[in-house]
Amino acid sequence: MEKKELLYLQIANHIELQVKNDVLKVGDKLPSLRTISTEKGVSLSTAQQSYFELESRGLIESRPQSGYYVSYAHQHFRQMPSVSKPVLAHSGEDVEEIISAMMRNAEKADILFSSGVVSPALLPVAKLNKAIVHATRSLPESGISYERSGNSKLKKQIAARSLLWGGDLREDQILTTSGCMDALSFCMLSLVKKGDTIAVESPVYFGVLQLARNLGLKILELPTHPETGMEPEALKKALERKNVKLCLLVSNFSNPLGSCMPDEHKKEVVRLMEKHQVPLIEDDLFGDLYYGNHRPVCCKTFDESGIVLWCGSFSKTLAPGYRVGWVAPGKFMEKVRRTKLYHSLYCTSLTHEAMGSFLENGRYENHLRKLRQTLHRNSLQFLRCISEYFPADTKVSRPQGGLQLWVELNKNKDAVELYNRAIAHKISIAPGRMYTLQNQYNNCFKLNYGMVWDAKVERALKVLGELAGK
Amino acid sequence: MEKKELLYLQIANHIELQVKNDVLKVGDKLPSLRTISTEKGVSLSTAQQSYFELESRGLIESRPQSGYYVSYAHQHFRQMPSVSKPVLAHSGEDVEEIISAMMRNAEKADILFSSGVVSPALLPVAKLNKAIVHATRSLPESGISYERSGNSKLKKQIAARSLLWGGDLREDQILTTSGCMDALSFCMLSLVKKGDTIAVESPVYFGVLQLARNLGLKILELPTHPETGMEPEALKKALERKNVKLCLLVSNFSNPLGSCMPDEHKKEVVRLMEKHQVPLIEDDLFGDLYYGNHRPVCCKTFDESGIVLWCGSFSKTLAPGYRVGWVAPGKFMEKVRRTKLYHSLYCTSLTHEAMGSFLENGRYENHLRKLRQTLHRNSLQFLRCISEYFPADTKVSRPQGGLQLWVELNKNKDAVELYNRAIAHKISIAPGRMYTLQNQYNNCFKLNYGMVWDAKVERALKVLGELAGK
Repeated sequence: MEKKELLYLQIANHIELQVKNDVLKVGDKLPSLRTISTEKGVSLSTAQQSYFELESRGLIESRPQSGYYVSYAHQHFRQMPSVSKPVLAHSGEDVEEIISAMMRNAEKADILFSSGVVSPALLPVAKLNKAIVHATRSLPESGISYERSGNSKLKKQIAARSLLWGGDLREDQILTTSGCMDALSFCMLSLVKKGDTIAVESPVYFGVLQLARNLGLKILELPTHPETGMEPEALKKALERKNVKLCLLVSNFSNPLGSCMPDEHKKEVVRLMEKHQVPLIEDDLFGDLYYGNHRPVCCKTFDESGIVLWCGSFSKTLAPGYRVGWVAPGKFMEKVRRTKLYHSLYCTSLTHEAMGSFLENGRYENHLRKLRQTLHRNSLQFLRCISEYFPADTKVSRPQGGLQLWVELNKNKDAVELYNRAIAHKISIAPGRMYTLQNQYNNCFKLNYGMVWDAKVERALKVLGELAGK
Repeated sequence: MEKKELLYLQIANHIELQVKNDVLKVGDKLPSLRTISTEKGVSLSTAQQSYFELESRGLIESRPQSGYYVSYAHQHFRQMPSVSKPVLAHSGEDVEEIISAMMRNAEKADILFSSGVVSPALLPVAKLNKAIVHATRSLPESGISYERSGNSKLKKQIAARSLLWGGDLREDQILTTSGCMDALSFCMLSLVKKGDTIAVESPVYFGVLQLARNLGLKILELPTHPETGMEPEALKKALERKNVKLCLLVSNFSNPLGSCMPDEHKKEVVRLMEKHQVPLIEDDLFGDLYYGNHRPVCCKTFDESGIVLWCGSFSKTLAPGYRVGWVAPGKFMEKVRRTKLYHSLYCTSLTHEAMGSFLENGRYENHLRKLRQTLHRNSLQFLRCISEYFPADTKVSRPQGGLQLWVELNKNKDAVELYNRAIAHKISIAPGRMYTLQNQYNNCFKLNYGMVWDAKVERALKVLGELAGK
């Protein structure tokens, strides 16, 4: 089974490459299934599967009684956004109002391009329900008691999965938390104090900005490449010149850029942190949502001294409402463990047990495989729609994982204005201004594509594109 | 039904009073059931019920073919501990080692007198399981999604129950949290910063000390009466002389003393806080566990300006592992709401919904009635055992609610030594030293009686009493 899958993927990937390189152009007819079968020496069903895959990626389409045609091509997508050059001065300007309005309005919207999670329609609700009922039976006292040292089943599974990214975690190196924000909060509370400076990507998830500000931290937004993430050179300079006490980054499929740091960059970042003895919080909450053949490694992969606090959760892949996250805090274990205990005691026994058994039964891998395919396919559909419906000077990121796109409009456009016009059509987007404390990204916004792709979504993108052109 | 209950309780309470006042002495024969029935003009079954009640309170016992006898009397219980006179200097001494050891050893112990929660055997596990399954059906997307603004059903129920203590809360004045520690943490993070002084009871729950120290606060332990709680006079002086920025107290059945502030004291405390414009965190997590006829009121009852942040949870009464707590933060609502959002986003949808529906169905009241009876009965049994088995100079609190006793041994005894000897017998107690940052309460310890009373527990108390006498 596994081998067959690889075969059809090989064929699909090869054809995708031909499309990318313009060997096959939009409108070209593809070889028949029989030809593929003969030429590649595979069964007819494998050939069929590879075409289904390409279809799901939005690259080809079948026309009745005629065969398969290239429907789209990569190089027709819009240009990538530029590398961010955040203003380094500290601005007092508050974006709380935009964020609060967006959250309030989200309930009224029909199309939630602003959401931070995938639609429940893409999640295995029935299987998770079974896991909950199972947990009421498998836990002592049905899970009404404290879980004390964290769910062991869950920690074992998280540790075991670390092999996928070249990690080598043990159960006792992991602290479970009530979601990933809890993990970030406990790390920050353990490592920094009011007035300290934290270095982050830019644009960066607004929740990180809010948390850091709530703790009275100074925030240094660093230049970030839309494909390769935070620039190590910029980090190096910051560490040398500024009094940085902590760094936080989403190395894989960052929010909102979708950038993924190359291995060499990750390695270099860890080297820098070790050299300057500054802890790194690595928020790896999107790492399992890669579109390629392998899960990307983490900064933690290269961490030999324990300076990286590796955080994650199942809020982007399984059940945000279950509040299951974790941190492997490296050499800061004892500090973070105590902070967790003092601030919130324990996690919810039931949902953590349910997640542990869900993983134990191999259900997570099956689900992820499907979810990644859907997200990849959606990303291509969104890119196509942006090319078709948005002004020609629109730029857009090309994420290789995760669930969101970063769109950059012409400099003279205002995404908050676009937001206001879109919400009148019950379409919610996330204006770029939310992802910085400085006065920038005013012409940018984020689009979440973690939803069921259908005509309604395409229509909404068309409306959005038209509004963006006005 | 309600009236009949009141009748048998009236009779039982009247006889208890006679025992307390020595009108009836240990060993005295009680009137026959027929006599009670005739004299009080009640049915035989009501008379029987009142005797069952007195039996359950450990006050009388039936002897076969003979009738009922007074088996114990209140004034025979050991003396009350003295009012605490905490050392006001800040000591650097660390009790983390005692606390960690106690938590580690707890897993090996057979008898957990050190626990902070009631035994699951006293909790409605099967009914809670049903509520969980129900929640997977009643919640949109089975509760895998974020709950955003907090479970509405739950908030409504908490608001409705505030009438019981003279409160008048609305749903929108309540923030749900993942247990009560979370609520305390969010309040402290919102109101104070490193270096600020917080005033607390003494002895005080060690978790409060740990949290406050983790935030870099200075802690002022105030004199506390074993029956009436924190002394308003001491608080007054502290507010006048020290630079107190925040006060935290457990007004009802404090941990570990079990004291309950009289209404007048509560009123006075609120007046003082208002005068000095210092916020009060009122941790009311034991308030529902009263043994009298009415739930005690709260400081919040007298709060007109919103200076009281009233916190609570179901961790002491229903399901600690569900992580369901709350805070009504008064005029600090917006601050605390943001702190919660920034540090942990949302609570676990499923367990909060389950708790909401459990309350909605009136199951909580039924359960509480039984639980309170059991706890009251157990408290009397524990008091009797301490009188019988502990050295004559032992002092012990006389809680009117909650689930724990505070025991004071002779000044030359060391409770940590007693702890070490007891744990060798697989009995865990909580040494008094844990409940202060100063070098005091070394001869005190806490006993949790929230368990099923049986011969094994009595034996353990006997062993403990013997060890305490050595």
